[in-house]
Amino acid sequence: MSNNSISKLQASEINELNRQMEARLNSLDNQDTLRAAMRYSVMAGGKRIRPLIVFATCASFQTPISEAVFAVAGSLEFIHTYSLIHDDLPEMDNDELRRGKPTNHKVYGQAMAVLAGDALLTEAFEWLTEAGISPVDNLKLVHKLAKAAGPKGMVDGQSRDILGEKQQLTLEQLKVLHAGKTGALITYAFEAGGILAGVSDQHQALLREFGLLFGLAFQIYDDILDVTSTQEKMGKAVHKDSLEHKNTYPALLGLNEAKRSLEHTLSQAGNVLKQLNDLGVQTELFDELLGYFKI
Amino acid sequence: MSNNSISKLQASEINELNRQMEARLNSLDNQDTLRAAMRYSVMAGGKRIRPLIVFATCASFQTPISEAVFAVAGSLEFIHTYSLIHDDLPEMDNDELRRGKPTNHKVYGQAMAVLAGDALLTEAFEWLTEAGISPVDNLKLVHKLAKAAGPKGMVDGQSRDILGEKQQLTLEQLKVLHAGKTGALITYAFEAGGILAGVSDQHQALLREFGLLFGLAFQIYDDILDVTSTQEKMGKAVHKDSLEHKNTYPALLGLNEAKRSLEHTLSQAGNVLKQLNDLGVQTELFDELLGYFKI
Repeated sequence: MSNNSISKLQASEINELNRQMEARLNSLDNQDTLRAAMRYSVMAGGKRIRPLIVFATCASFQTPISEAVFAVAGSLEFIHTYSLIHDDLPEMDNDELRRGKPTNHKVYGQAMAVLAGDALLTEAFEWLTEAGISPVDNLKLVHKLAKAAGPKGMVDGQSRDILGEKQQLTLEQLKVLHAGKTGALITYAFEAGGILAGVSDQHQALLREFGLLFGLAFQIYDDILDVTSTQEKMGKAVHKDSLEHKNTYPALLGLNEAKRSLEHTLSQAGNVLKQLNDLGVQTELFDELLGYFKI
Repeated sequence: MSNNSISKLQASEINELNRQMEARLNSLDNQDTLRAAMRYSVMAGGKRIRPLIVFATCASFQTPISEAVFAVAGSLEFIHTYSLIHDDLPEMDNDELRRGKPTNHKVYGQAMAVLAGDALLTEAFEWLTEAGISPVDNLKLVHKLAKAAGPKGMVDGQSRDILGEKQQLTLEQLKVLHAGKTGALITYAFEAGGILAGVSDQHQALLREFGLLFGLAFQIYDDILDVTSTQEKMGKAVHKDSLEHKNTYPALLGLNEAKRSLEHTLSQAGNVLKQLNDLGVQTELFDELLGYFKI
């Protein structure tokens, strides 16, 4: 697998995942508009970072990308997509553009966007339990996914975000917010890969640690990009965070300190990879993933 | 168990379930408002029909009401509650009153109501996978619950309902709508009880058939009540369906024909109970549940 690379995974496995997600949604025996609304947001593109993490983790442990791995990756992307649809709603972030296209509710209306999100969230658990994974591991995956996505994880972070808009958060509060909103699902992606690969508890603990740091880096990087990038590059509205007095790393720390904080987080993550490497794990793919955050 | 009754189950098991649901929500380590919003709708009362079905099914097969049964019943009620919160949203049914109290978004705002619903839906799967059920059965329950609640079940019915408001549905279309919106979760409740009780495939098929008829009766009864009852009795706005030109059984068939349709459905359900009875199953509790729909 040492001749593997993220771009190879993207060209092969992510393409196949896109095909499987689309086929699954097309085959849903349900109301046409609901199906179209679900399909619209899932197939709107996106970087598929979370599935890529699952694939990269499996590949790093020489685990073939089987149907089970696709089910874990696809169900995770469904949950990520649902969260974007609900985040964009007028009562939430009120966004009109996502991945360069009108947001779900701009196309299908607000009610259908709520339902498309609900449907993707629920369908994720259906797919995940059809994965053909051993029941013990499968149950563990369902439990971890629900915990990461729910009121102790992503939804908790989202509610802190919504309520935090009215106040200035401390750095500590901002970290808790993002550990939920972005970190929980990303950490799950690494852990799920570890479960699929049947890694040891020691490996799993390091994957989890790496996932937490990766999720943190992801968010600081995204905040920095919101300040420094253009709408054209991002495919969504930028400079929106500061306009709306959102709590971000650059807003709290200043742009330079935010960049230093990103560097520090990336170096901590690098240390975890070194530990994995010392245990004989091939970490090239993880290294390559970290390269995503170079600024 | 022959000295069991629905009212006994209500006094003992439903009370205990309420206690467990409240304790679970109180112990959530998350954002205060989110937790309060989740708690508000779950503890707003309601008839707890779906948990009652799970308990009654277990009791009918002499299966003790263990922690596993409470997890199945509680996770189901969480999903039902999420669906009510989202249904009531301004972009959906725009209801201001539920179970005699202001709806979730009237108290916590629209964004928090979306999130409280998302959180309860996800938390349901977390609870269900902590049930201590055998992994094979537990996975089956997760799969059936996701299928019943998702885009092939409840969310499908809900989207047909939202889109159907603008048009006159046929009776056949109305049945499909309700089979999803109300029927799927109710049928799951009977099937989940059967799985917990470890019943045979033959019993399970009959439980499923009974569940489908019970769900249909439930909806026709609810539609009739909307015409004939008062807001005081119902704890929510009535005569709303006809005002909003909603598709209902009385609107499509007339009140008398809707009542006859209910009678017919109840008699079919009674026939299924007879078959269960012939197989040695004690069906008193199921009979009593059907009594709920006497008009």
